[in-house]
Amino acid sequence: MLEHSLYSDCFSSADMRSVWSEHATISAWLKVEQTLARHQALENLIPQEAADALDAVSVCNLDTERLHEDMMLVGRPIVGLVEQLRRQVGEHATKVHYRATTQDIMDTALALQMKIGLEHIQTGLQRLTTAIEQHIDQLGDTVMIGRTNGQHALPIRAETKLTVWKVELQRRAQALEEAGVRGLNVQIGGPVGDLRGYENGTGHRIKEGVAATLGLNVVEPHWQNARDGLADVVTALGGLCATLCKISHNVNLLSSSDISEWSEVHEAGKGASSAMAHKQNQRASEFGEAVARLGRQRAEQIGEFTTHQHERSGGMWIGEWIVIPETFLLTSGALSWVETIFANLVVDSESMARKVADFEDSTAGKTH
Amino acid sequence: MLEHSLYSDCFSSADMRSVWSEHATISAWLKVEQTLARHQALENLIPQEAADALDAVSVCNLDTERLHEDMMLVGRPIVGLVEQLRRQVGEHATKVHYRATTQDIMDTALALQMKIGLEHIQTGLQRLTTAIEQHIDQLGDTVMIGRTNGQHALPIRAETKLTVWKVELQRRAQALEEAGVRGLNVQIGGPVGDLRGYENGTGHRIKEGVAATLGLNVVEPHWQNARDGLADVVTALGGLCATLCKISHNVNLLSSSDISEWSEVHEAGKGASSAMAHKQNQRASEFGEAVARLGRQRAEQIGEFTTHQHERSGGMWIGEWIVIPETFLLTSGALSWVETIFANLVVDSESMARKVADFEDSTAGKTH
Amino acid sequence: MLEHSLYSDCFSSADMRSVWSEHATISAWLKVEQTLARHQALENLIPQEAADALDAVSVCNLDTERLHEDMMLVGRPIVGLVEQLRRQVGEHATKVHYRATTQDIMDTALALQMKIGLEHIQTGLQRLTTAIEQHIDQLGDTVMIGRTNGQHALPIRAETKLTVWKVELQRRAQALEEAGVRGLNVQIGGPVGDLRGYENGTGHRIKEGVAATLGLNVVEPHWQNARDGLADVVTALGGLCATLCKISHNVNLLSSSDISEWSEVHEAGKGASSAMAHKQNQRASEFGEAVARLGRQRAEQIGEFTTHQHERSGGMWIGEWIVIPETFLLTSGALSWVETIFANLVVDSESMARKVADFEDSTAGKTH
Amino acid sequence: MLEHSLYSDCFSSADMRSVWSEHATISAWLKVEQTLARHQALENLIPQEAADALDAVSVCNLDTERLHEDMMLVGRPIVGLVEQLRRQVGEHATKVHYRATTQDIMDTALALQMKIGLEHIQTGLQRLTTAIEQHIDQLGDTVMIGRTNGQHALPIRAETKLTVWKVELQRRAQALEEAGVRGLNVQIGGPVGDLRGYENGTGHRIKEGVAATLGLNVVEPHWQNARDGLADVVTALGGLCATLCKISHNVNLLSSSDISEWSEVHEAGKGASSAMAHKQNQRASEFGEAVARLGRQRAEQIGEFTTHQHERSGGMWIGEWIVIPETFLLTSGALSWVETIFANLVVDSESMARKVADFEDSTAGKTH
Repeated sequence: MLEHSLYSDCFSSADMRSVWSEHATISAWLKVEQTLARHQALENLIPQEAADALDAVSVCNLDTERLHEDMMLVGRPIVGLVEQLRRQVGEHATKVHYRATTQDIMDTALALQMKIGLEHIQTGLQRLTTAIEQHIDQLGDTVMIGRTNGQHALPIRAETKLTVWKVELQRRAQALEEAGVRGLNVQIGGPVGDLRGYENGTGHRIKEGVAATLGLNVVEPHWQNARDGLADVVTALGGLCATLCKISHNVNLLSSSDISEWSEVHEAGKGASSAMAHKQNQRASEFGEAVARLGRQRAEQIGEFTTHQHERSGGMWIGEWIVIPETFLLTSGALSWVETIFANLVVDSESMARKVADFEDSTAGKTH
Repeated sequence: MLEHSLYSDCFSSADMRSVWSEHATISAWLKVEQTLARHQALENLIPQEAADALDAVSVCNLDTERLHEDMMLVGRPIVGLVEQLRRQVGEHATKVHYRATTQDIMDTALALQMKIGLEHIQTGLQRLTTAIEQHIDQLGDTVMIGRTNGQHALPIRAETKLTVWKVELQRRAQALEEAGVRGLNVQIGGPVGDLRGYENGTGHRIKEGVAATLGLNVVEPHWQNARDGLADVVTALGGLCATLCKISHNVNLLSSSDISEWSEVHEAGKGASSAMAHKQNQRASEFGEAVARLGRQRAEQIGEFTTHQHERSGGMWIGEWIVIPETFLLTSGALSWVETIFANLVVDSESMARKVADFEDSTAGKTH
Repeated sequence: MLEHSLYSDCFSSADMRSVWSEHATISAWLKVEQTLARHQALENLIPQEAADALDAVSVCNLDTERLHEDMMLVGRPIVGLVEQLRRQVGEHATKVHYRATTQDIMDTALALQMKIGLEHIQTGLQRLTTAIEQHIDQLGDTVMIGRTNGQHALPIRAETKLTVWKVELQRRAQALEEAGVRGLNVQIGGPVGDLRGYENGTGHRIKEGVAATLGLNVVEPHWQNARDGLADVVTALGGLCATLCKISHNVNLLSSSDISEWSEVHEAGKGASSAMAHKQNQRASEFGEAVARLGRQRAEQIGEFTTHQHERSGGMWIGEWIVIPETFLLTSGALSWVETIFANLVVDSESMARKVADFEDSTAGKTH
Repeated sequence: MLEHSLYSDCFSSADMRSVWSEHATISAWLKVEQTLARHQALENLIPQEAADALDAVSVCNLDTERLHEDMMLVGRPIVGLVEQLRRQVGEHATKVHYRATTQDIMDTALALQMKIGLEHIQTGLQRLTTAIEQHIDQLGDTVMIGRTNGQHALPIRAETKLTVWKVELQRRAQALEEAGVRGLNVQIGGPVGDLRGYENGTGHRIKEGVAATLGLNVVEPHWQNARDGLADVVTALGGLCATLCKISHNVNLLSSSDISEWSEVHEAGKGASSAMAHKQNQRASEFGEAVARLGRQRAEQIGEFTTHQHERSGGMWIGEWIVIPETFLLTSGALSWVETIFANLVVDSESMARKVADFEDSTAGKTH
């Protein structure tokens, strides 16, 4: 909802903003219309020339101001898009959006955008786990005090703390992978989702063809009012955010003045206070925490929006238009901050050793 | 987060977007710096000329690109703003942002924006209750079937249904009013919030002076890590959204094909289907439901962000930057849709009478 | 849902469990039936003898096993209750539950229980603020380091931290008070809520009489499908929980090994570790945090349950049966833990002074 | 939290209440202590006689009142349990809970209880999908009107609606399966989770042995502060609840007076109204909706509780003690209600045919 240029890089990555930009969204709709037409031509439902004519249309040919007006009149963006496409293909007009419905186009395009979004997240996760592994290697046998329930418990290997995070991130990557298998599906079904009007199995062949072309899966009979798979994807992003929130918060605690065992490297002015020259605020970890928390909360909203009535209900569906892109955006932002943390992280082995020594002094004779 | 021109009017009102625009936000920060300086001059803490020089600065004099860069370096937008302001006032540079801290400026500006935002909401609520009253007047003694647990129960006066909504909206207006009393506060306290550095009561006089000038309240000692009042405002917006969601959903149900007692007036093309020419989708009510639901959910996020650590914590505070504006925006959007519903609502008295008659036939001899 | 004797005092207070016990709940239903009858007798709708006969019935006369069976058959507990009451009053049977509906009884009883629950909370809040005031008095001018964004910022007066909490708790008490004004209402309206069947204003007089007798307010036309006032009460409890969570979490942080400025007094074995003899876990503060967090989250659930369809819908209403009592219970538990914190809190002035001294050493020459 | 005998079967199944009863919970703790001892004996860390002596202890030998007192003193239930166990095994006392910590016992026992809970859910899901399949078979080619956005769209095969639900439930079963693989893990690690004190790989062998014996998985290094896998299980239950909520709500809508195409079979008195003799409230579908909604919301709470600080934090962990059992309980309740729906469901083919005929009349000439 809120998009201040002042803050933009704070809450999402530029890459992810591209995936969900208005331009990319309209492009995805167009691509689905084109792919559908191509497969309908293969089944001889429309002439190959119609599919070719549609393929020739580019997003740049579209009048987005007009799309906006039609959207506000119709309450859905595809009626206006189809009208413009029909004007572009002349005699083949009736073959555009053939036997399709708005939700076919928007759901399939959404799956496409989610697929690309997930690829960005997975790539970021790989970079992040590699960065953590480097810290693990450097730490070797370094020891720090372990803290349970806020109290000094016993010394631990510092690398164990990082290994727990790395393994958790890898589990999150796997959870996202599995959610994608259930949630990235083509939607081709027509007005009530059941391939009505298609004959002799052409509907199923087209549906599978489009899925194969776009790298998506197929759900039978349809998922137009069964949003659980899509919710799995959003929820898995929320789970990743929870992990990123925890990591950020813990780095922030370890770099607090009272602990001072870790810190983010400082260039001049970074984390400056407008009132106190001596302070070095730990920004990546606090932003990482805040953005990840926002992302997790946003993901928790998707469940309520799965309660469709009958074959489809707008009062539910429209909520997804906001919740899904925003969850992807916030997750990308949180991930970027955590990447920044580990790019800059400095571990103060001396400080850690001092706490361990203090602990051993204070508990001498007590721990046995 | 997401700001597509295609959808913009669907999720917020233009008025509310103005309140929370980047321009308005920076203007509010500037206004707080200026108001603070003016009151510091009154107490002779800074020269009147310094306050005057600062007053002469306009947002148009600021380099927002540079503000963005400083924001990304510092992690807060005010250090960069103050630097630019200092350059603008020449010799008075050290008197700008005197004894203030970033949060003083941002919190007070936030309270100002919330105050204006609430005024827009209250005005909209007044328009809405007036519109509902007109329908109540027109309905007179018209009777419709009452439905409990989905079943036809007994006939009710149609106006009672609308009166319940009107009274509920009035309670929501009152709840917002009361939340505003607790939540719209000036924040002037310096680096740790306690007016440190001010002497002989000048701090308190300045704080109260700024509050009076800006039309805000005062909280003692401070609220920099006590976000409960602010959360009350957000939560009260969430409560309003819940009411707007219920109203929208009920209008949508009453205009469903199976009930067909109410409907939104249709101009040609409105609510058109890309697949089915005979359909008249009820758009204002479905958007009202979806946007109100998003607004209520967004408001529910604020509670988690009140758990500050110590005197202030960024990992909590930054979350407000998103949740608060977005809750205002979504509430404005939901309210606009419900205004649209009642501007267009057509009640079909015959259809209502028919259901009552059917009910009386079917229960003849049973209800006694 | 979960009621383990092992944990019972951990998540709620005994007082609050009494308010919401099965016995108290059935008693409240009976009281509402009795009070309604008494006022109907005053209006000569039923004979005084009928009201007297009903007044003579006690919860002990009821067969709760049978109530349970009827509940499982009917899906609501009042049909079975009314049957048992009718059997108890002999010839006056038809005057029991006269012109009433299940929701009249359950909603009014709920308001009664909430009223008592709120009184317990307010009493607890008073005890708590008194306890905090005592600490404030003892602290006098004691100084400790202020921490912003995890970093040592500047020294603050320790009492300021406590005063912020005290004032916040007082605001929460006020918010609960205001919510109660909107949310504690009698529900007398009959099957569709509109006092159908009552004539010549008798309905309104009875409604107001019952309200006066029970100390509740009146909403017109009714609130059977307008749950916003009730949601205000639950939400205000959630706001209190957020405050209790923050206080607990901060005490826990200040008593962590790395800060060690505050602590909970320890008796032998309290907070013992099953593995580490040297540890002194800070239990009241960690339970306070966890239970308050649960309470805040539970309160956030109420909004979704306000979306009734038509004149009433069970799929929404039934959710309240769980969410409301549980929010009260968890709030009482959180409040008890925070009372325990301040009953036992020991502030280590020397430790606080040491941190301030270290800070002043480290920033000598930097803060100017 | 709330456990009224009046409502008990409404919100959970008896089976699931057994899984999470106090007795079952203490039994699970005991079983983990016993299994751990057995594997420690195999590695010669403790004498076989010690393991045998511990194996001979039964929950019936424990003093639960005393456990409660110790719990309230210590803030954790295992210190008291271990004391009682040590008294039972005489000379082997020091070998009980050897190198273990409270969380080892409670986490492993939790995984065991979740495993059994998931088995109950999977069994229920199988019964439910079988029941739905029978309806699908009976429906054959029966046609009903499809409704999109509340409007009559086009006729659909009634069985398609049920097939969408069946397939969705099967996806939920698969999601639960996958979550279980990540979330059902043994926790054996000692005070800071890292198998400290074990030598020469004995720790890992014991951990794997215990896992094999209990049918759980192993996570390295540990998951004592990495709660993501466990959150996956809870979240997957929430996803199932969302599906059950949708199904229940849709059945309720289809059995509303205005649609009347489906209904729950009625025995005398079932769903009776205390005010209106003619009503037939649809109880299983409304309870299914309400309980499933509660279950989904409860599951959404788990994410916030994953933000542990350092090696473990009570303020987070304690929240799980409530959220996890309650999510399982509510899911079981929702599932039971949906089973009841399909056990009793009557589909009114004539009523469905009438709506289709009406639709075809009204759109004649419009759909082409």
